[in-house]
Amino acid sequence: MSTEIASDKVTKADVVGRYLSAHLTPLEHAEAFAPSNIALCKYWGKRQDELNLPVNSSLSISLAHLGSRTVIRPSATGEDKVILNAKVLDLDAPFASKVIAFVDLFRRQQDLPVIVDTRNNIPTAAGLASSASGFAALTLALNQYFQLQLPDNVLSAFARMGSGSASRSIFSGFVEWQMGLHEDGMDSHAYPLDVVWPDFRVGLVKVSTSQKAVDSRSGMKRTVATASLYQSWPAQAAQDLEKLHQALAQGDFTLLGSTAEHNAMSMHATMIASWPPLLYWQPDSVAAMQKVWALREAGIEVYFTMDAGPNLKLLFQAKDQALLETEFAGLEVVAPFSGAAARV
Amino acid sequence: MSTEIASDKVTKADVVGRYLSAHLTPLEHAEAFAPSNIALCKYWGKRQDELNLPVNSSLSISLAHLGSRTVIRPSATGEDKVILNAKVLDLDAPFASKVIAFVDLFRRQQDLPVIVDTRNNIPTAAGLASSASGFAALTLALNQYFQLQLPDNVLSAFARMGSGSASRSIFSGFVEWQMGLHEDGMDSHAYPLDVVWPDFRVGLVKVSTSQKAVDSRSGMKRTVATASLYQSWPAQAAQDLEKLHQALAQGDFTLLGSTAEHNAMSMHATMIASWPPLLYWQPDSVAAMQKVWALREAGIEVYFTMDAGPNLKLLFQAKDQALLETEFAGLEVVAPFSGAAARV
Repeated sequence: MSTEIASDKVTKADVVGRYLSAHLTPLEHAEAFAPSNIALCKYWGKRQDELNLPVNSSLSISLAHLGSRTVIRPSATGEDKVILNAKVLDLDAPFASKVIAFVDLFRRQQDLPVIVDTRNNIPTAAGLASSASGFAALTLALNQYFQLQLPDNVLSAFARMGSGSASRSIFSGFVEWQMGLHEDGMDSHAYPLDVVWPDFRVGLVKVSTSQKAVDSRSGMKRTVATASLYQSWPAQAAQDLEKLHQALAQGDFTLLGSTAEHNAMSMHATMIASWPPLLYWQPDSVAAMQKVWALREAGIEVYFTMDAGPNLKLLFQAKDQALLETEFAGLEVVAPFSGAAARV
Repeated sequence: MSTEIASDKVTKADVVGRYLSAHLTPLEHAEAFAPSNIALCKYWGKRQDELNLPVNSSLSISLAHLGSRTVIRPSATGEDKVILNAKVLDLDAPFASKVIAFVDLFRRQQDLPVIVDTRNNIPTAAGLASSASGFAALTLALNQYFQLQLPDNVLSAFARMGSGSASRSIFSGFVEWQMGLHEDGMDSHAYPLDVVWPDFRVGLVKVSTSQKAVDSRSGMKRTVATASLYQSWPAQAAQDLEKLHQALAQGDFTLLGSTAEHNAMSMHATMIASWPPLLYWQPDSVAAMQKVWALREAGIEVYFTMDAGPNLKLLFQAKDQALLETEFAGLEVVAPFSGAAARV
């Protein structure tokens, strides 16, 4: 009889527990920031649900100052408290219960009530997911708060268990999340790429900020279960990752942009080929895509990527910023390599 | 040394020539009608270019009285003449040159100038391709004109060489085009399915009638060449075909509609996953899809299919016609099994 634990029997608590001492000594105050990130090669599909282990490796750009700042303090009342954007949440609210479940992985049975106070400075208009930066900031803050002094790759793997793409938000700049092979997922973490590209820009185009009808976790599941075309996705993602590495090594913006757009459209194609069809696009998303293609026809090097939502994220170079701000009213431009480092 | 002819060396002229006697005896007048058809399992991708041999079998519904009527007469002037919707075309115009090239397959070197007069009664608003019904009607008219008395399966295979989906427009009702295996393609023809479904309705939703930016022949090529996700298409099409046969055998409208919509969305997914992206949808296409999905949520059994263009074709049952005519202004409804037979 084998004593090996089947892959889906490894729990988050098992994995985190191995890195903790029996008793934790919390500080009075811990604070951390983590940036949002935009994937240029998308994370789409899990090979294991409990630990958020992905089917494919992915690559992203972190959005510098845009992200989540999380403060953790002891709770004097003896009750946990979760504050999001200055509002105290009901502990049964989805975000609050996820945060507390994540804190529980660290404090386990110890009586260490906390106040978790998170602020997202992502403009509401941008329609960016905050779970990646949120879980990354929470992981970094917990590392400080409990004085764990864990290395970045472990923090990235932990953040991944909160929300897959949070593994990438531990770092700034271009970041790769390697899918890993191990059963406990500890080799499925991100690492920063040694590339600085000062002229690289990301532009956030607001199409709609309404709540998604289908969250990305469910969308991913439906795609894997019902889209025949998904079978070809892992191979394409691997190929796109190679192209992105080449583009970054050579500073080839055309290769970078075209690969990112092709990758995003292919991911959306797998959703569209699901049943029932999963279409995150709004009519205005199509209008914005057509505008990007028309600009490209006219010689402007602009590409886009999209996540599980209706908004476009433009990829371009500093020289085209003024023109694109004119073409896309309300464009929020991020310069990932300028200003202060993303990580506090 | 093999004497076999490589697949791409077989020409249309070779194939057609085998069915013709040395000298043709044309009539003074020949006339034929062929219906448009809407595929429920799409033809998408060629395994051989010259003969329009498909990667997968497909299944369609013919649109009864909507289609093309073609008259062929001898030309007294000694010059060919092509008339489309009562307008004499320049012989260099794309449609005219394709028609003449097709006529040449039959008359070969013989001096038999013709007047080909084609009228499409497809409402311009419907945004339906006319090449399928056009080449089917031309094939049927040529068969009469030259007194060939060829069987339907041969006529279907000939029509296929004019335009792939024309193979299906030789017949009315539900029609399957079997992909075939032979090198000369003569087993790649359509045949009518023995199913009568009086309540079955097709509704044409006009989104746009503007010219396509990329014709379907080029779109198909780009998809096969650049979309990794296309690799999964042939298997899905085969599976969808099975489901459609089951739906037709059991009169299961839900299975029929859902399979057709899933198939169409999967075909569009392969286009979207091409590079550069091939998106035939307009913003209003997305709005119309969302409307269909909302109606379905509300319990109305309506599905859609789409071809290489922005327009939706609704699939529903007679009982929901009045409601859908209210929901979709200008809806053109076709009852494929009512009225006169499609073939004259």
